[in-house]
Amino acid sequence: MSAQTFRVRDPNYLERIKAVFARQGFLHYIGAWIEEVAPGRCVIAAKLRDELSQQNGFFHGGLMGTIADAAGASATSTLIEADQSLLTVEYKINFLAPAKGHLLKAIGEVVRAGRTLTVCQVTLLTVDDAGKEHQCGLATVTMMTLTSRGDHK
Amino acid sequence: MSAQTFRVRDPNYLERIKAVFARQGFLHYIGAWIEEVAPGRCVIAAKLRDELSQQNGFFHGGLMGTIADAAGASATSTLIEADQSLLTVEYKINFLAPAKGHLLKAIGEVVRAGRTLTVCQVTLLTVDDAGKEHQCGLATVTMMTLTSRGDHK
Amino acid sequence: MSAQTFRVRDPNYLERIKAVFARQGFLHYIGAWIEEVAPGRCVIAAKLRDELSQQNGFFHGGLMGTIADAAGASATSTLIEADQSLLTVEYKINFLAPAKGHLLKAIGEVVRAGRTLTVCQVTLLTVDDAGKEHQCGLATVTMMTLTSRGDHK
Amino acid sequence: MSAQTFRVRDPNYLERIKAVFARQGFLHYIGAWIEEVAPGRCVIAAKLRDELSQQNGFFHGGLMGTIADAAGASATSTLIEADQSLLTVEYKINFLAPAKGHLLKAIGEVVRAGRTLTVCQVTLLTVDDAGKEHQCGLATVTMMTLTSRGDHK
Repeated sequence: MSAQTFRVRDPNYLERIKAVFARQGFLHYIGAWIEEVAPGRCVIAAKLRDELSQQNGFFHGGLMGTIADAAGASATSTLIEADQSLLTVEYKINFLAPAKGHLLKAIGEVVRAGRTLTVCQVTLLTVDDAGKEHQCGLATVTMMTLTSRGDHK
Repeated sequence: MSAQTFRVRDPNYLERIKAVFARQGFLHYIGAWIEEVAPGRCVIAAKLRDELSQQNGFFHGGLMGTIADAAGASATSTLIEADQSLLTVEYKINFLAPAKGHLLKAIGEVVRAGRTLTVCQVTLLTVDDAGKEHQCGLATVTMMTLTSRGDHK
Repeated sequence: MSAQTFRVRDPNYLERIKAVFARQGFLHYIGAWIEEVAPGRCVIAAKLRDELSQQNGFFHGGLMGTIADAAGASATSTLIEADQSLLTVEYKINFLAPAKGHLLKAIGEVVRAGRTLTVCQVTLLTVDDAGKEHQCGLATVTMMTLTSRGDHK
Repeated sequence: MSAQTFRVRDPNYLERIKAVFARQGFLHYIGAWIEEVAPGRCVIAAKLRDELSQQNGFFHGGLMGTIADAAGASATSTLIEADQSLLTVEYKINFLAPAKGHLLKAIGEVVRAGRTLTVCQVTLLTVDDAGKEHQCGLATVTMMTLTSRGDHK
């Protein structure tokens, strides 16, 4: 099966994605940032601090779901038109191991980009003090592209 | 199909659930609280503020997933032994409508409590200024009960 | 939260749903039938036989997913226009107990009907020889409404 | 992130997997077969015929879910002890494109093998007359390992 090649419709997608990201108070509040963007791909990261932890001091599952959603949305956003916008239809996350480490990354990759729906897969991993990566989650994110301003859903 | 009756093994579950909730830095950071607890059921709530919003000023989908997870975990926690603990195996959330309103509630209900795995369904709704409730999400949460301290997963 | 009332756009939905059902070779092959239909709701059933079983003689999980999908699709179909059609976007099923019994039912209910996407919840249960029902599964089905003949996805 | 290496506990896993597969009436009924097995990986396939189709003559979504479940279960089964058995906890499938083609394959790969729970990812693809493969689905399967005969769930 040959790798999917992605068609970029808005060459200024990076600025647009950064702007949408910046307008989301919750992403700012958790200190998440865009680590990497490429057509059909986006990596979102966050640093561990007490405010993002669960009862054992690891990254909280809700935080993991949040950056998985953001990674899927931003990966999808690289492929839409400049005047389109996105809604998350649903996401699902499996927790594979305790999210131990000082850094959490969600690597979002578009599996299928459609006119209306796009499906992304997201790999979540932590980075430990030695710089080693450990997969701690796997998510699927379904996005919907809106062409007009109205609620298309 | 007759309603499921739940067996409570730890009569002090409320204190235990509150204590576990309080140890989760992320739940404190987002200002979530336990609104209601009963055997096999828990309602978690949060108030809208800029720090919890997405780009349109509504509750962020990641925040919604977070309190859905907490509602499922706490509903499950009403049914475990005093010395057991829980892990989220996976959760999945569908977004049904924009999460407009000043208050968000996640109503978690145990659908099936097993020795190792428990499945919960979570209804997410917002409350508007007139006090009217609007369903904005539907989630499924799968929890795993750990008996010993070790990572059973 | 008040119950959702559903708007029926095609009064002949029952005939249309039966016709679509009949054209699906797989549903015929597994012997599934429409047990009940009402606006926003559909129950699909199948009888146990060796050809539908897993290794312990209970209903196979894949068969359960199949009739859950059919129940969600048919429940959604009660609410679309006569000239619209449906695609399953995704479904997710949790297995709650061994699917023991001679009859399997999937009760599909629309949770949210949107212009493009509809989300259904499906309860799966078996009926034993004494006529008692036992929930064995819980599914979520996301459907997409297509207005034209083209692949809108 | 380095590739996961899998530990095989039962060198005779292939015979065991074939035997479990053969005892599942439903898998036999749909004509599915094991195309390929390796540690942490299994490919299940089925040929198109009217009995497996939906209304447009493509592979039915329920059939796709069925072989995805079988691929995840068999991939997991390569890593368990000879006297252990498996249950599917849940699966979720996204439909990415019409499943056109004469052959359907589900490539199941273990993402994380734990003592109790194992998570697999499954890629579904069809093969057309020219031998070209087209991805039509993406699934996640969560399996539970049972050590004793009792219902551990």
